[in-house]
Amino acid sequence: MIIQLHPEIAAAQRSRIGETVAQFGYDAKEVITQHGIYWVCVGTAGFDIRRIGALAGVKDVHRVDAANKLVSRLWKVEDTIIDLGNTIRIGDGSCALMAGPCSVESEEQVADTVAFLVQQNVKIMRGGVFKPRSSPYAFRGLGMEGLRMFAKACRAAGIRIITEVMEQEQIDAMYDYVDVFQVGARNAQNFNLLDALGKTDKPVLLKRGLSGTIDELLAAAEYVFSNGNEQIILCERGIRTYEKAYRNTLDLNAVPVLKEKSHLPVVVDPSHGIGLRAHVPHMALAAVMAGADGLLLEIHAQPEKALSDGQQTLSFAEAASLFSKIKTLEMVRENWMDLWQ
Amino acid sequence: MIIQLHPEIAAAQRSRIGETVAQFGYDAKEVITQHGIYWVCVGTAGFDIRRIGALAGVKDVHRVDAANKLVSRLWKVEDTIIDLGNTIRIGDGSCALMAGPCSVESEEQVADTVAFLVQQNVKIMRGGVFKPRSSPYAFRGLGMEGLRMFAKACRAAGIRIITEVMEQEQIDAMYDYVDVFQVGARNAQNFNLLDALGKTDKPVLLKRGLSGTIDELLAAAEYVFSNGNEQIILCERGIRTYEKAYRNTLDLNAVPVLKEKSHLPVVVDPSHGIGLRAHVPHMALAAVMAGADGLLLEIHAQPEKALSDGQQTLSFAEAASLFSKIKTLEMVRENWMDLWQ
Amino acid sequence: MIIQLHPEIAAAQRSRIGETVAQFGYDAKEVITQHGIYWVCVGTAGFDIRRIGALAGVKDVHRVDAANKLVSRLWKVEDTIIDLGNTIRIGDGSCALMAGPCSVESEEQVADTVAFLVQQNVKIMRGGVFKPRSSPYAFRGLGMEGLRMFAKACRAAGIRIITEVMEQEQIDAMYDYVDVFQVGARNAQNFNLLDALGKTDKPVLLKRGLSGTIDELLAAAEYVFSNGNEQIILCERGIRTYEKAYRNTLDLNAVPVLKEKSHLPVVVDPSHGIGLRAHVPHMALAAVMAGADGLLLEIHAQPEKALSDGQQTLSFAEAASLFSKIKTLEMVRENWMDLWQ
Amino acid sequence: MIIQLHPEIAAAQRSRIGETVAQFGYDAKEVITQHGIYWVCVGTAGFDIRRIGALAGVKDVHRVDAANKLVSRLWKVEDTIIDLGNTIRIGDGSCALMAGPCSVESEEQVADTVAFLVQQNVKIMRGGVFKPRSSPYAFRGLGMEGLRMFAKACRAAGIRIITEVMEQEQIDAMYDYVDVFQVGARNAQNFNLLDALGKTDKPVLLKRGLSGTIDELLAAAEYVFSNGNEQIILCERGIRTYEKAYRNTLDLNAVPVLKEKSHLPVVVDPSHGIGLRAHVPHMALAAVMAGADGLLLEIHAQPEKALSDGQQTLSFAEAASLFSKIKTLEMVRENWMDLWQ
Repeated sequence: MIIQLHPEIAAAQRSRIGETVAQFGYDAKEVITQHGIYWVCVGTAGFDIRRIGALAGVKDVHRVDAANKLVSRLWKVEDTIIDLGNTIRIGDGSCALMAGPCSVESEEQVADTVAFLVQQNVKIMRGGVFKPRSSPYAFRGLGMEGLRMFAKACRAAGIRIITEVMEQEQIDAMYDYVDVFQVGARNAQNFNLLDALGKTDKPVLLKRGLSGTIDELLAAAEYVFSNGNEQIILCERGIRTYEKAYRNTLDLNAVPVLKEKSHLPVVVDPSHGIGLRAHVPHMALAAVMAGADGLLLEIHAQPEKALSDGQQTLSFAEAASLFSKIKTLEMVRENWMDLWQ
Repeated sequence: MIIQLHPEIAAAQRSRIGETVAQFGYDAKEVITQHGIYWVCVGTAGFDIRRIGALAGVKDVHRVDAANKLVSRLWKVEDTIIDLGNTIRIGDGSCALMAGPCSVESEEQVADTVAFLVQQNVKIMRGGVFKPRSSPYAFRGLGMEGLRMFAKACRAAGIRIITEVMEQEQIDAMYDYVDVFQVGARNAQNFNLLDALGKTDKPVLLKRGLSGTIDELLAAAEYVFSNGNEQIILCERGIRTYEKAYRNTLDLNAVPVLKEKSHLPVVVDPSHGIGLRAHVPHMALAAVMAGADGLLLEIHAQPEKALSDGQQTLSFAEAASLFSKIKTLEMVRENWMDLWQ
Repeated sequence: MIIQLHPEIAAAQRSRIGETVAQFGYDAKEVITQHGIYWVCVGTAGFDIRRIGALAGVKDVHRVDAANKLVSRLWKVEDTIIDLGNTIRIGDGSCALMAGPCSVESEEQVADTVAFLVQQNVKIMRGGVFKPRSSPYAFRGLGMEGLRMFAKACRAAGIRIITEVMEQEQIDAMYDYVDVFQVGARNAQNFNLLDALGKTDKPVLLKRGLSGTIDELLAAAEYVFSNGNEQIILCERGIRTYEKAYRNTLDLNAVPVLKEKSHLPVVVDPSHGIGLRAHVPHMALAAVMAGADGLLLEIHAQPEKALSDGQQTLSFAEAASLFSKIKTLEMVRENWMDLWQ
Repeated sequence: MIIQLHPEIAAAQRSRIGETVAQFGYDAKEVITQHGIYWVCVGTAGFDIRRIGALAGVKDVHRVDAANKLVSRLWKVEDTIIDLGNTIRIGDGSCALMAGPCSVESEEQVADTVAFLVQQNVKIMRGGVFKPRSSPYAFRGLGMEGLRMFAKACRAAGIRIITEVMEQEQIDAMYDYVDVFQVGARNAQNFNLLDALGKTDKPVLLKRGLSGTIDELLAAAEYVFSNGNEQIILCERGIRTYEKAYRNTLDLNAVPVLKEKSHLPVVVDPSHGIGLRAHVPHMALAAVMAGADGLLLEIHAQPEKALSDGQQTLSFAEAASLFSKIKTLEMVRENWMDLWQ
């Protein structure tokens, strides 16, 4: 059960609601976000929830049987839209493009990419400065210094930044330079990090774990939301299966299923999802038709010289060709709104 | 190495080639198909294959390092097109539609479906008469009697039939009534069945195994081809993973990867691939953008009354809406030929 | 519900039972095996089954909620023992050893192996004559000729034979030479083959599919049993997972779980289960402690010269050392009967 | 390549070695641990490593081709033994028992468990105070207060504590109360946490990720070791597969394979590995035969009242019976040292 309170609820009304909830045998957790005050109530007793709805101070009340409550469409039917300012939005029916290198490598690389994105009218740039690497001896990113340089170039061009945060302590330092915090697949169940990101007021993109389930991805989002941050983007990026012909198995089933279960926007990372440069465009376009609210793409002026993930990174020419196809498909699917009800 | 012989090669030329092949330490298997005579030669020695190409009677020779040779694009660059007559083709750049019920249930059901397909201009009907079921107590299909009835209705309407064959002994009996033999996921490595289908002259559609790899699917096709039948269609239908939010995990990565590795057409079964009726259209459209040469779809006049698979079966109204979207996407992708080189 | 009938039930009693079953809304399938007459009744109505038990001609009646009924321990509490004659048994509390080469290769190879098994007091020899191979160009076994030679050598030494049957048509030809028919992992859901083996009176060993579930393995056994053959052995042989450090992932969890759910004996194939010769002994011993009723082991006088699977095949010296350890563990676990209740 | 330096190497010798390494085109990372000074050198050039070995100040040098170097048996052949003082050891050929509740719940619970362990002569107690939970609304452990209470009871009884640490910031606070830091499956690739644990001087037990590979588990250990901490224990705890008959699929193949690849001790958690109380003993005993250096077991005075994981937790009576069987098996396997070479 989710009880949405009036923002200016009086203390007496509040305790009255608390008593009623307890009386029905429910535990309530208060959640205060950018957009509202919610009480998430967990319990098993059956009763007529209108008895809660009728109480003064209650704006709305919903029965939510799913394990993940605040992120569920069972109480919030309309889509959540992430607003990054200046008409840059994720989840508004369009397909938001987020493109950039796997790793931020140099000022020149960032400048080249920014120039390309500006030319292509792409408004969000991705790029890693803290890189989780399976070997401790591999390149682990330029760190905060790289992030400041990255941010400077993007800010000047009106481009938003999405980049990965690996631990709680980095959040404060990164805060001023980041528009969307990305949680990587390897941290998909780092609950302390999720708790901490729930206490910021910037959007958070959650990648599905290496072998994460749909329910686990929603639970990760529930962690963020229940700590106070409603601005969450879900990201399918391929799962680990027995198949070794590609890096991961892109699971596009996840797109319509997540959108049915949750009001949050769902984006797709086809670069990691197939890991083969020649086939990234096919999977990107497939993702659009599956209903993706956005795409996360690895691009590089010279993919063969990228410090990481070159084998799945598009050149600028390939990216430009793909972006134009995506624009076409966006228009096609706009007419097919029966698909998304 | 694949050596393609001139169809009217003389015996002396033939033995001369055989000697040369043996001299280089290769084992040769002769394959005679509808379209040609091939020698598939397995060995490891390196030598200049032009020495084979120069021999009289040799039409062409190709080095094919892949384990699966005859089905590889390494020797046959152009797409294989399956021609079912009367301009009904699979693999010609369009997206061939194959629709029908999971199981053939009754004359009325078949008649309704045929009428719907005729109205929609869909030329191939699917429908099972021998059903592999996980329980010995479940409905196992109408058998040969059902097939005869099914064929009669389709023939009258100019519609082609694709249906599953479960064992070698059924082939002869089914032959006159079937246009495409389907091998189900559970028989994906039934090598005796594959051998036998390689000896027919009708097209064979091979479903990927429940947890079949790309290489195993190609190997199954190699079985059929190397027994003499070049008319093979590969079918992605979802794989078994840890995820339980859907029946299978549709692996659309397989589409561009199979098309890169093989010259055979690749179709997708989104009905089994997600197993959830509401989301079949999204996955069907995604498959088109991934490059599918066709779609296998479960439809039924009254899905809720279907004897099997009702939960993933589209109603006629849903199917009609989807077919029209697919037509639109087909036209869109026709302009994007750079995707398929 | 399973109704066990008296073997000499009168026709009138039989139809009386049939009427009562139908009256409760159940469908009954009659199963006649080596050991009894059963009616497997499928339905959902709740009623007091003692009303069936009280009818004349009924020996016993059990409610069996599981999907797989005849193989379930819900109606047959005591272990099924497979008796191969001359005190050779599988499922009697001991750990039956089945050893031999992957493929039967030559008379000399068979003679060497038989001599070794006799010396080691191992009573069952494995060896393939029909080999399912992923490539159509690989060695596919010596066929019937090999089987006759294999059988001659084993019969002379009092050794039983287990070998794989790949299709229904082979059953009759193989019948005289085989003591246990093995169904391979790739045919685990070849329902026509299972039906046919259910009509023989020789024991059948069912390997779990490449990514077969526990329920699917039991369903395969239900196919055999419901066709009339109670002599079934279940075999865990490793499953397909994302892990590539070994050929398969041996799933020993399956052993106690299968033994809890079913009365059938459960054996383990550690050779395929790990696929690495040096570690086969560890996994064999682990299987004994997990409760295996037997082990299927690949051995060869010269593993490095084996025509197939050499990398997972034990030499005779390694096998002898392992056999003696297994004997020790058998005695140890005999004292721990609390583990198996 | 791993170069082991003399502990009191002179600065001049050090720079001489550095120059030689660089001259061969290698990058060197210096690692200073409890036991030595190592230079881990990454590069691809081939040269005679004796040229390094001959330099003054070099104790030993080894070519290590594996991606994970310091944890590899390629340079350190003898087993690493974790010494917890007072003759409590992991990795010395015995099977170390670590038992206790999933979560520390109360003083009484801890006291009962400690008393039981003392009586059973079990020297290491497990128990969680920070619990990673898939739902943010579930019980998340007693935290530091619980840990202090837990430690007090164990210290008084001479029992060592192993408990999970979830993030870097907890390390200092927990340090005084913990004997072995456990990293949970969900943090298996939390590289910042691994880095930080590499800087402590207490042993670290690394659980394999939910779908972690053998190589990833070794890489996690390489993170810890390369930060300066050699005291690492690897733990197999079941992997995520398609099979839903049990919570996880215990992968005992991992035990001999990890022990072959690495010098680190390998322990098994059969409680999580099968997740079914009745079958935990079978899997524990199987793990002993697979070669486990220890077992992590969930036990509780009243499993049915445990706050978490009750369905896989042994009662004290069940645990006592299992411990005695494990002791027997330990003696049996001691005689089979040929298994572990």
